[in-house]
Amino acid sequence: MNMTAERDRAPKQDRSRATRQRLLEAAVACLAEHGWAGSTVSVVAERAGVSRGAAQHHFPTREDLFTAAVEYVAEERSTALRALFPGGAADRRAVVTALVGLYTGPLFRAALHLWVAASNEEQLGPRVTELEARVGRETHRIAVELLGADESRPGVRETVQGFLDMARGLGLANLLTDDTGRRERVVAQWGALLDAALG
Amino acid sequence: MNMTAERDRAPKQDRSRATRQRLLEAAVACLAEHGWAGSTVSVVAERAGVSRGAAQHHFPTREDLFTAAVEYVAEERSTALRALFPGGAADRRAVVTALVGLYTGPLFRAALHLWVAASNEEQLGPRVTELEARVGRETHRIAVELLGADESRPGVRETVQGFLDMARGLGLANLLTDDTGRRERVVAQWGALLDAALG
Repeated sequence: MNMTAERDRAPKQDRSRATRQRLLEAAVACLAEHGWAGSTVSVVAERAGVSRGAAQHHFPTREDLFTAAVEYVAEERSTALRALFPGGAADRRAVVTALVGLYTGPLFRAALHLWVAASNEEQLGPRVTELEARVGRETHRIAVELLGADESRPGVRETVQGFLDMARGLGLANLLTDDTGRRERVVAQWGALLDAALG
Repeated sequence: MNMTAERDRAPKQDRSRATRQRLLEAAVACLAEHGWAGSTVSVVAERAGVSRGAAQHHFPTREDLFTAAVEYVAEERSTALRALFPGGAADRRAVVTALVGLYTGPLFRAALHLWVAASNEEQLGPRVTELEARVGRETHRIAVELLGADESRPGVRETVQGFLDMARGLGLANLLTDDTGRRERVVAQWGALLDAALG
């Protein structure tokens, strides 16, 4: 390959990556706003300003697009969360608030629509189950790390898991109404219980 | 009204009540299995062995049928739960397990489908929001009563709320896979933490 071809290839790869990223972000926003029934490759392509053909080049099926989108945004959020607390558990209450925040935005809403659709759609079920397990493990790993939890002590693993289950439940309670006020009081109380339990 | 008419009316009312009940139970089962998209008045009528006309006499719209169904089954479960612990908080761990059980069966699955559909459907949104608030208040009331929680003490209200949020999150984690083993360990650990926090 000569140098001109090399130079041409790099911007082309950049453009392709940027298109993919736009599609993934548009897919999560679409799923959060319109649910699974209202989310198709065409709708997302239009939202992202990408042709339907280009969208299908990146994601041959609807299932490919939406599972990839939820995974991509989950990874972005994990990276952002780690960057927010570079030294680990400096302030456990702040970590608790940030972890609960993972379950109250558009990503959780999008993931919820995908999970619920997966419980009735055969072609989606196994893929979303696998995705949920992967994202769940990663979230648990981050929580343990940022909370400075010592999982070698009996009960600590389950304490962290139950806290993340509570965060998921708080996300669900925020689906139809703005539950911010109640959530802040619950998080303050459970943050203190968690802090005491983790020692 | 003469005595014959009186005698005729009572069985007719009984039959009507029995039909209504069969429709409500079929509606919850249908929603849990097929989701909102697969749940119509016709499908439920067939499942309940009732004519479509009779179903529409009881429930003029799809929204009427499914919101009534979730409310009816939630009330049945509340009554059953109270009957299970007539003396209140005899065994707090058993109460914790029973409360978490509210979120892992077909009722929770049906309610979840209804909530998620309501977040995107205008004609469903306000009705489900109102229903969720009503069922949520009643569940909180039962939890406080059966756990023997003293809400006049600071933080106790939020402790109970957070526990119910955890139960809801555990229900969500059980949607795609059988999460029983993990859930039992989490409930054992948080049951102990909750018991200590409630004093």
